[in-house]
Amino acid sequence: MRPGPSSVTRRRSAYSRSPYAVDMAQCFALLITPVAADDTRSDYSDTFRAIDVTAPALSVGELSTQRGDGVFESIGVIDGHPNEVEAHVQRLAHSAALCDLPAPNLPQWREAIAAAATHAPAGEAVIKLILSRGVEHGPAPTAWATVSPAADNSLVREKGVRVVTLDRGYDLEAGERAPWLLLGAKTLSYAVNMAALREARRRGADDAIFVTRDGFVLEAPTASLVIRTNGRFLTPSPSGGILHGTTQLSAYEFLTARGHEADYATLRLEDLQSADAAWLLSSIRLAAPITAVDDVEVPTDAALTRELNAFLLSPR
Amino acid sequence: MRPGPSSVTRRRSAYSRSPYAVDMAQCFALLITPVAADDTRSDYSDTFRAIDVTAPALSVGELSTQRGDGVFESIGVIDGHPNEVEAHVQRLAHSAALCDLPAPNLPQWREAIAAAATHAPAGEAVIKLILSRGVEHGPAPTAWATVSPAADNSLVREKGVRVVTLDRGYDLEAGERAPWLLLGAKTLSYAVNMAALREARRRGADDAIFVTRDGFVLEAPTASLVIRTNGRFLTPSPSGGILHGTTQLSAYEFLTARGHEADYATLRLEDLQSADAAWLLSSIRLAAPITAVDDVEVPTDAALTRELNAFLLSPR
Repeated sequence: MRPGPSSVTRRRSAYSRSPYAVDMAQCFALLITPVAADDTRSDYSDTFRAIDVTAPALSVGELSTQRGDGVFESIGVIDGHPNEVEAHVQRLAHSAALCDLPAPNLPQWREAIAAAATHAPAGEAVIKLILSRGVEHGPAPTAWATVSPAADNSLVREKGVRVVTLDRGYDLEAGERAPWLLLGAKTLSYAVNMAALREARRRGADDAIFVTRDGFVLEAPTASLVIRTNGRFLTPSPSGGILHGTTQLSAYEFLTARGHEADYATLRLEDLQSADAAWLLSSIRLAAPITAVDDVEVPTDAALTRELNAFLLSPR
Repeated sequence: MRPGPSSVTRRRSAYSRSPYAVDMAQCFALLITPVAADDTRSDYSDTFRAIDVTAPALSVGELSTQRGDGVFESIGVIDGHPNEVEAHVQRLAHSAALCDLPAPNLPQWREAIAAAATHAPAGEAVIKLILSRGVEHGPAPTAWATVSPAADNSLVREKGVRVVTLDRGYDLEAGERAPWLLLGAKTLSYAVNMAALREARRRGADDAIFVTRDGFVLEAPTASLVIRTNGRFLTPSPSGGILHGTTQLSAYEFLTARGHEADYATLRLEDLQSADAAWLLSSIRLAAPITAVDDVEVPTDAALTRELNAFLLSPR
């Protein structure tokens, strides 16, 4: 491990942008009043309304803010088209169930996403969905969606990312054994994910890959991992321990349609280190080729990365 | 393990009150503009202002709400007197450092606490401090403090709590080995703590005690654990793995002043099960005697519990 950074470096890194950073100055937001899952009205448009994002919108009693108590999704939008909407709303529902939140009404969320998308700028944008347990002592969850321009990720898709591996503390079975650890839920409690990204930057890398205590690779703080070994594409099995990546699912569609073998597996750190190519996949940054693992250069496949990103940038 | 609960039970438990629940209807709040730690003005009163808690006060861009990215403290207030202020602000600073947040200006926080305390109702109240990384892309953290009446904990101090032990997934050294897990920081990412409390209630208990993968007891989701064995008081060593409890510190002052031996130790689950008394200690509920561990009744010491709570209810 390298020596620690100076306090100046640490201070600056506290405000590092994540690929999911929302630029509030160019943000549009909808405040959503969640309705019950069994509410079957034909039109949900009166359950959400545009809000002024430069003005306060949330109570200090919000449990999202007091305890990171809620779930979220980030959806990539290309020229006004939100991608993988179904995978995202299904995962939102899955996360909500794991957190004992009332089941989201998916038609309502789909309609809110469509409404938000009409406010997306041309090019790449991001829609963020947040479902919070609501205000303390309140009877109902609160929810909102934001849409804002995405950061320019074209360079990182081409040049790739240097990653460090970071101990996640858990063993591979922790998630299934202890569901209260919420490892399969995309919760708002992301402080550890953000701390891992800061640690990666302190070590001179761009991103991190979490490794279990027993030496298995899991995922990045905000992305899925896919490796290629002997022509086979592999990603860690989505279990109680990691999220099922929506972009990884799309990439697997692309790969299998082209005749590649693409599977789920239990992957050891050595499998990543010896892969003949590896990527981090996420909804906004899309496919970022991994160029180094713990400061050791690893092979990449520029042609395939380009084709994969072209696919991921197309409407789905 | 018991069979799972019905979905009705699960739904209701989603809104269970925690001992730290804030009743917004009777809440007073100060919005704080954090100043640099080396700002040495003599009066910070113009850096915070009362806000209407029934009105929105926070941006949807708040990183506290988007990622549980910030730190907090809950301070017990008795008849307008905030207890253990110094221990709380010091822990706030410690948590901020672990999270690479700018160091809080402690004179500013002490002054804000004093100002909030003047709005505390008679009897027991709670001041909650929140320091968030701020609005996305913003240059500065945001902060606020709330004060509200505490729930009536007199019964639980007398009757005690039934606890279940829950696997925390980590081993005892995870916190020191992997500081990015933020195990020693009181972050806003409390979804797992809340999920553990819901799991405890599903199992018919009142609270939970986290146990490491390798069988050591740690702490409760919102409280410290103290046991008595052969007349000696013991609490798990505050390391990278757990928070150092402010109320536990006060309890140790009380105990040592009365000639008791009170130490830090590495405690196995068996030590809890065979203790001759055990308590959960926290700032608002104070000393709650443990009456059962995983459905096995354990001995209590009603006289000592009463004296300890009388001390903890006195101004400190």
